[in-house]
Amino acid sequence: MIYFDNSATTKMYPEALDTYLKVNEKIFGNPSSLHQLGNMAEALLKQSRKQIADLLGVKTDEVFFTSGGTESDNWAIKGTAMEKRAAGKHMIASSVEHPAVTRTMEQLEMLGFEITYLPVNDRGVVSVADLEQALRKDTILVSIMAINNEVGSIQPIKEIGALLEEYPWVHFHVDAVQAAGESNPIIQHPRIDLLSLSAHKFHGPKGVGILYKKHGKRIAPLLTGGGQESGMRSTTENVGGIAAMSKALRMTLEASEENTKQERLIRDKLAAFLSAYEDVHVFSPEDGASHILCFAMKGVRGEVMVHAFENEGIFISTTSACSSKKNDVPYTLGSMGVNPAWSRCAVRISLAGENTEAEAEAFMEHFRTLHKKFKKIQ
Amino acid sequence: MIYFDNSATTKMYPEALDTYLKVNEKIFGNPSSLHQLGNMAEALLKQSRKQIADLLGVKTDEVFFTSGGTESDNWAIKGTAMEKRAAGKHMIASSVEHPAVTRTMEQLEMLGFEITYLPVNDRGVVSVADLEQALRKDTILVSIMAINNEVGSIQPIKEIGALLEEYPWVHFHVDAVQAAGESNPIIQHPRIDLLSLSAHKFHGPKGVGILYKKHGKRIAPLLTGGGQESGMRSTTENVGGIAAMSKALRMTLEASEENTKQERLIRDKLAAFLSAYEDVHVFSPEDGASHILCFAMKGVRGEVMVHAFENEGIFISTTSACSSKKNDVPYTLGSMGVNPAWSRCAVRISLAGENTEAEAEAFMEHFRTLHKKFKKIQ
Repeated sequence: MIYFDNSATTKMYPEALDTYLKVNEKIFGNPSSLHQLGNMAEALLKQSRKQIADLLGVKTDEVFFTSGGTESDNWAIKGTAMEKRAAGKHMIASSVEHPAVTRTMEQLEMLGFEITYLPVNDRGVVSVADLEQALRKDTILVSIMAINNEVGSIQPIKEIGALLEEYPWVHFHVDAVQAAGESNPIIQHPRIDLLSLSAHKFHGPKGVGILYKKHGKRIAPLLTGGGQESGMRSTTENVGGIAAMSKALRMTLEASEENTKQERLIRDKLAAFLSAYEDVHVFSPEDGASHILCFAMKGVRGEVMVHAFENEGIFISTTSACSSKKNDVPYTLGSMGVNPAWSRCAVRISLAGENTEAEAEAFMEHFRTLHKKFKKIQ
Repeated sequence: MIYFDNSATTKMYPEALDTYLKVNEKIFGNPSSLHQLGNMAEALLKQSRKQIADLLGVKTDEVFFTSGGTESDNWAIKGTAMEKRAAGKHMIASSVEHPAVTRTMEQLEMLGFEITYLPVNDRGVVSVADLEQALRKDTILVSIMAINNEVGSIQPIKEIGALLEEYPWVHFHVDAVQAAGESNPIIQHPRIDLLSLSAHKFHGPKGVGILYKKHGKRIAPLLTGGGQESGMRSTTENVGGIAAMSKALRMTLEASEENTKQERLIRDKLAAFLSAYEDVHVFSPEDGASHILCFAMKGVRGEVMVHAFENEGIFISTTSACSSKKNDVPYTLGSMGVNPAWSRCAVRISLAGENTEAEAEAFMEHFRTLHKKFKKIQ
């Protein structure tokens, strides 16, 4: 089996799974309970928060635990809307954000908010000048992803951060769900106010995520109740999941330089191989993320390609997992101006550090055969 | 160690933990991925949903997975508010709901919603007549918990369901977080539209919950994004957690008759023992839940009692875990009209099926000693 679908989800590190297991066996108390079992759970929670804060280079009171990237995005956006609605109802996002951002903004449109979607160029990247033009007095939020999940475009987060220094009233949110293993530091500019991460994208458990919220920046809670997470996100803390996430993040960041190098080697090799075919188009920009390679073979629909590789024990994806079962045209490719006839054929290879050159060779070998087969049918 | 804090959280069944482990090792794909690893995860998700629906006696498309009881409560309430705000902005809850309900309604008050809190009697139970009086043309939601988490009062869910047959425009939400092991069937009346459950209260994992939503009843999504859970609750599904929850719910319900009997035996024994002391008051009503016993010794603050028992290896709680570190007066006891001088002394024993009579004997033995010691100090 060759698993090339790491942007959809990663396999948990055995060490992280082991942490989950041990915590749930031995430190199973409710962190809010006053007794020793509660205190042990609370201490572990505190230790995990400290480790994650240190890894991200932020303060412990800036790290909040959520149920994943989607909740982090929803909270950042809806929490800003609720908190700042008296100051303004205008928000800005790129046109290639994950649905966790765009669908959330669409929901807010029904409540009277106005959204500006920034266009992207043919490499899937927004322009800082476009953002500057879109900014208004009543803009309360700018939400730009760090790395696009469909093609791997890297957005100019640092430049946007620099621009937004002039707009201190605007919350700056970065969906960094695809960026945990890639670009260090994850928090690329001090102007970032809010940043979303999802554990299962970096070999941690599903159902756990992080929202970084800069000290002093205010958003309303999305989950209200027992007052956990300093009153900002209520619910009994998933201590085992959080400890496992903390371990996975440490392992991911420790290996990130090596992994990124390895991923880039494989990606570039595959990109060069695929680009040599006249009827194959590679959509991922050369300067994109090391772990994502999006391409299409003319006339072969994405799902057909996915299943053809599946038969060979190679698991790839149709651009994004979320849209794969809905027959949607990939939103990023659409925004990049790719013809739907091409984008319906798009598939995504997404890598992790454990992928090998031998796997890339196997992929290429199978592609050669499949290409011939598809050509014959056409 | 004697663990008498099962209403705060339970220890995961080893079988459920094993399920979590195996799924994350072997079926780690994203259920939205088109390939075989995705399909395996999707099939397991479907199977878990079917099992849970069967256990609850509902349809599969009525079961939604969440991150826990708090999210289920928040979604039911905020989702109703968002969906039905044009029809009305009035909601009704009991005055002894969990903060996941009351804090959520308070947040909605800031958006112009009006909340009526129903009083409770000295057993912590709401009156159906009071509810009937509170219902209005613009009432959109009634939220009443099945079992109170602080003293174990059982609310008249069936009678409320019957009353609400006359008010078809009102959503009826039941927070059943404390009721999974206790009252079968969990969904006690067909008029219930929405019902919240939390896995870690029935020996499942933390960070996973259920919202039952009756077919045809509409609420807005709280988490928007990739369109999972029929577009109603986006985020990559926590497949391992959900499968583990499904197993834990099955085991809980299979053992519930036996467990309830065992818990009641212990509870009644302890209640009789404690009531015999002149300076001890038992707040839990005799007809309350089998697993919760709330009492106080005059002049001994709850946290002092908790720590005194902790020193003997017995883990109890100050009424609710959520409020225990905040020095709050327990909301349920306050609503029941208990004098704060008494309620500050309240502690809660909460049982599970694995607790034994021998543990109850040990508790009583220690209480005798502690009582003498406290009397001497006083």
